[in-house]
Amino acid sequence: MPIYNAPLADMKFILNDVFQAEKFWQKNENLAHLDAATAEAILEEMAKFSQNVTLPLNRTGDEEGAKYDNGTVTTPAGFKAAFQQYAEGGWIGLGADAEWGGQEMPKMLTVLSDEMLFATNPSFMLYPLLSVGAGMALNSYASQEQKETYLPKIYTGEWAGTMCLTEPHAGTDLGIIKTKAEPNNDGSYNITGTKIFITGGDHDLTENIIHLVLAKTPNAPAGSRGISLFIVPKFLVNEDGSLGERNPVNPGSIEHKMGIKASATCVMNFDAAKGFLVGKENEGLAAMFVMMNYERLSMGIQGLGASEFAYQNAAQYATDRIQGRSVTGAKSPDKVADSILVHGDVRRMLLNARANNEASRAFAVYVGQQLDITKFSTDPEAIKAANNRVALLTPIAKAYLTDTAFQAVLDAQMCFGGHGYIREWGMEQCIRDLRIAQIYEGTNGVQSQDLIGRKTIKCEGEFLAEYISEIRDFTNSLDAELNFIKDATLDAATEVESVTKYILEATQENPEFPNSAAVDYLHVVGLLSFAYMFARIANAAKEKEGDFYQNKIALAGYFVQRILPELSVRITKVKAGSEVIMSFSEDYFTHQS
Amino acid sequence: MPIYNAPLADMKFILNDVFQAEKFWQKNENLAHLDAATAEAILEEMAKFSQNVTLPLNRTGDEEGAKYDNGTVTTPAGFKAAFQQYAEGGWIGLGADAEWGGQEMPKMLTVLSDEMLFATNPSFMLYPLLSVGAGMALNSYASQEQKETYLPKIYTGEWAGTMCLTEPHAGTDLGIIKTKAEPNNDGSYNITGTKIFITGGDHDLTENIIHLVLAKTPNAPAGSRGISLFIVPKFLVNEDGSLGERNPVNPGSIEHKMGIKASATCVMNFDAAKGFLVGKENEGLAAMFVMMNYERLSMGIQGLGASEFAYQNAAQYATDRIQGRSVTGAKSPDKVADSILVHGDVRRMLLNARANNEASRAFAVYVGQQLDITKFSTDPEAIKAANNRVALLTPIAKAYLTDTAFQAVLDAQMCFGGHGYIREWGMEQCIRDLRIAQIYEGTNGVQSQDLIGRKTIKCEGEFLAEYISEIRDFTNSLDAELNFIKDATLDAATEVESVTKYILEATQENPEFPNSAAVDYLHVVGLLSFAYMFARIANAAKEKEGDFYQNKIALAGYFVQRILPELSVRITKVKAGSEVIMSFSEDYFTHQS
Repeated sequence: MPIYNAPLADMKFILNDVFQAEKFWQKNENLAHLDAATAEAILEEMAKFSQNVTLPLNRTGDEEGAKYDNGTVTTPAGFKAAFQQYAEGGWIGLGADAEWGGQEMPKMLTVLSDEMLFATNPSFMLYPLLSVGAGMALNSYASQEQKETYLPKIYTGEWAGTMCLTEPHAGTDLGIIKTKAEPNNDGSYNITGTKIFITGGDHDLTENIIHLVLAKTPNAPAGSRGISLFIVPKFLVNEDGSLGERNPVNPGSIEHKMGIKASATCVMNFDAAKGFLVGKENEGLAAMFVMMNYERLSMGIQGLGASEFAYQNAAQYATDRIQGRSVTGAKSPDKVADSILVHGDVRRMLLNARANNEASRAFAVYVGQQLDITKFSTDPEAIKAANNRVALLTPIAKAYLTDTAFQAVLDAQMCFGGHGYIREWGMEQCIRDLRIAQIYEGTNGVQSQDLIGRKTIKCEGEFLAEYISEIRDFTNSLDAELNFIKDATLDAATEVESVTKYILEATQENPEFPNSAAVDYLHVVGLLSFAYMFARIANAAKEKEGDFYQNKIALAGYFVQRILPELSVRITKVKAGSEVIMSFSEDYFTHQS
Repeated sequence: MPIYNAPLADMKFILNDVFQAEKFWQKNENLAHLDAATAEAILEEMAKFSQNVTLPLNRTGDEEGAKYDNGTVTTPAGFKAAFQQYAEGGWIGLGADAEWGGQEMPKMLTVLSDEMLFATNPSFMLYPLLSVGAGMALNSYASQEQKETYLPKIYTGEWAGTMCLTEPHAGTDLGIIKTKAEPNNDGSYNITGTKIFITGGDHDLTENIIHLVLAKTPNAPAGSRGISLFIVPKFLVNEDGSLGERNPVNPGSIEHKMGIKASATCVMNFDAAKGFLVGKENEGLAAMFVMMNYERLSMGIQGLGASEFAYQNAAQYATDRIQGRSVTGAKSPDKVADSILVHGDVRRMLLNARANNEASRAFAVYVGQQLDITKFSTDPEAIKAANNRVALLTPIAKAYLTDTAFQAVLDAQMCFGGHGYIREWGMEQCIRDLRIAQIYEGTNGVQSQDLIGRKTIKCEGEFLAEYISEIRDFTNSLDAELNFIKDATLDAATEVESVTKYILEATQENPEFPNSAAVDYLHVVGLLSFAYMFARIANAAKEKEGDFYQNKIALAGYFVQRILPELSVRITKVKAGSEVIMSFSEDYFTHQS
């Protein structure tokens, strides 16, 4: 059976040494209730839960899958008990406001607890994740009465949440959705339409499910400015909070997917289901984006979790598997062969994964800290700066972390040879489960368009300039013994600045330029971000003694020599422009002659 | 249902225009029976078979899978009838000698017919593929009597073949296998041991299965010099050719795999099964490598087939799916949105796939032609040169074609967004099915070690120097209007020459250098090879008129601008050396602190 040991030592290093979290929390009155010891205790509890409860359900969940039968969805054996245990532990409301029963933990911490769940059972994790996302959207946009009705039950895990956006003909382009919301006399609406790809659209984990649904009211403006957000509960809620009549919102089927098979992905049919407007008419997309941004960071964490899980298993397998001999002479002469760890190519795959994992973990905590500033700070300047940073880095967190993680799980599978391709070692499931993270919540291509368009060109590079300014300030302060990462990071910053200027100019002449350059540009900013993370990691490690810390600095060296060089080819591709890409006729693509 | 239109126009272009196959065949007395019209007719027949017979069985085969029950393996519904139809069409012996009932078609042609089968049903294709591989090994090393007994029945499809190499503890390192062969008085041997990952180890497609088994005789030398090859038939064959008693070789189970689920991958137990030595004792590995090299080129074709299939489906989906608007204004103002082909990033993914497909197809035919020279030529000089070329390029054909294809199928899936992740569009199966091609028949990492070690360092770069000399001769002859590909190819050749020299020198000082550099070096030589193929494609297209040919030249331009730049980062990584990789202790990999 696959192994997983929660990387607590690394998590504590990132929190305590790299980001000095306790100091940050204590400085902020809204977070002063938290100290490092409490944070560590929370991580240790989640380590136990993920290792003992969700990990053993991962393969069985995949094999059994969520099941649809006659209008009802059933989760695999053990999921309901695990969900109840998770809910009873207070985990669903870990980051939620105390007013609604939450524990008010900062995102810096919850990203780490989320990582362990994603590592051990991504299908399971998606159920509470959607609840938390729905809770966030309600917390930001719903009325006080709506919050009182729904939020406490969501955080206790009695009810769950979903987000219902996609329709058969409308995914990325939500402006063309067809689901209708017709007003009733009592202020409610009748919601009619079909939504697809609804994670947790139906299941047996909770007594009620609160759907957040995008729909169009009569005479709403065309496009994305005419979309409203509605609460559509599976069971209507009586005034006393008890469950009332069954609302006509039903799963029509579940999808048969490549992976995350224990997560029920539903087609949801709304047949004049009663819905309640959240916020104002036609302003639904903004409310949904609160949830989307939260999910997008989480998808990056899904990548990190999977990659850490895959790394640990591949490293163990490579240690145990003996095959061939070291070129410098037998390392285990008492055995018929050496461990495959003597081969540089096996190490290369493992070190790529480990370097990306450690940088990803630091980056997730960094973005979490920025989100915490936007939520908990009392300084308007700091909040504004952090909002810009979050806007810039959310697409990186979603797409770059999942792109690097997917390569890492592929490499981990490769370390197993043929054994990686069969079910028992868990690698093939890990790949199938992770692949969706590059696709859903806006494909990584769409994330890249967001980064280059709304987050860069629209503000004329301001968000990036602010980020690079911080990177330079920090990196310039590094000691001379860290020159290898200092120089590499500063050089990368200059190159990123320069290619961004190039993009801004090229776009003025050719509006098609950015779309073709987007994915490569996202990797450019991702590489710089990981260099910055390694600068921070190396700086923190340098203060300490022992192999653990020395290895952090060595891994930063590996990153500089073997991963950061990707920057130049990405920049070359950005500059290659869109001419050749757009020069082919549309017909060309489907015609061979 | 997924579509597939055999790319006949491109295949004919590659055969007739790029490689002028008929001229090559007619020049060679052993191939003079073949002309272009016959070759095209064969391709057209296979196009029908693959589109009408194997394509419809692809998804059902995946869903049903091969089944093991009480010592017997059953293939999915329809497979047996399809196999019979395939066998009756004479396809199994398409490339085999006439003496044994084959059609003596050259590899240049069979790679193209293989591509169509791999595109439409890789699981199906593996059954005849193993038969053909076993036939080749027997044809090269078996006695006349053995050939007479087994080869005709294999090529009619009455019997099938397997290769039994891997054991639970021994995959890449065959020197440590434990299967024993104990001599009997009648000249036969008793074979005892367990083999795993045996493709087609048991099935219901044929009345007999001829296993080729690696085993060790008593007192055989240790390591790979003590391995012998045996024929172990499922049913022993009587002197009159009829089937005799059941040999104690049985499937113990079948593997549950990520993909190619309709291909039975068996654990095979040999319990003193009667075996017959092929060739000489202790020389089994050489005989098996005849088969392995054949399979390795085929795995590259598996990549090409999958990538062409994925490309066609993604291009069609991208044409049909409307979502968002072109940045330069609506292209389909009568619809609610434009086709996603207006987005540069979607085109980038499709063009990457198409460029790699067209170069891969040319490369497969090129390597096929070299194999044909080794087999059919009467000129010893030409045979020696072709043998060197095949040795050099086999690892590229296996690993580079599958690496680029795997990226292409991932990109194709991404073009579908969430629809790519669900079963109905066929993309997720394509990915699962293709992934094994990077792993089996020697992982792509092992192929890279083969390229850099045995094929480059061992001959001090001679094979590569010969190849580059041919590339320079050809490319220098290009017209000035093709300077864009001429210059790019010549520059690449110089860079590859230079980094190869670097490797030869670095290895003298540090024997661990090549292992760490191998995968990047394989991509270096792969990129040069594709540049060379595009030089040949562009040169052939330039002579012709019409969009089909103009687009070939445009695609060569795309390759130069957007794919070939990978060369520089690969070279940087090669030169990064092994120091940092080998600097970590073995303990580091499995320890977090």
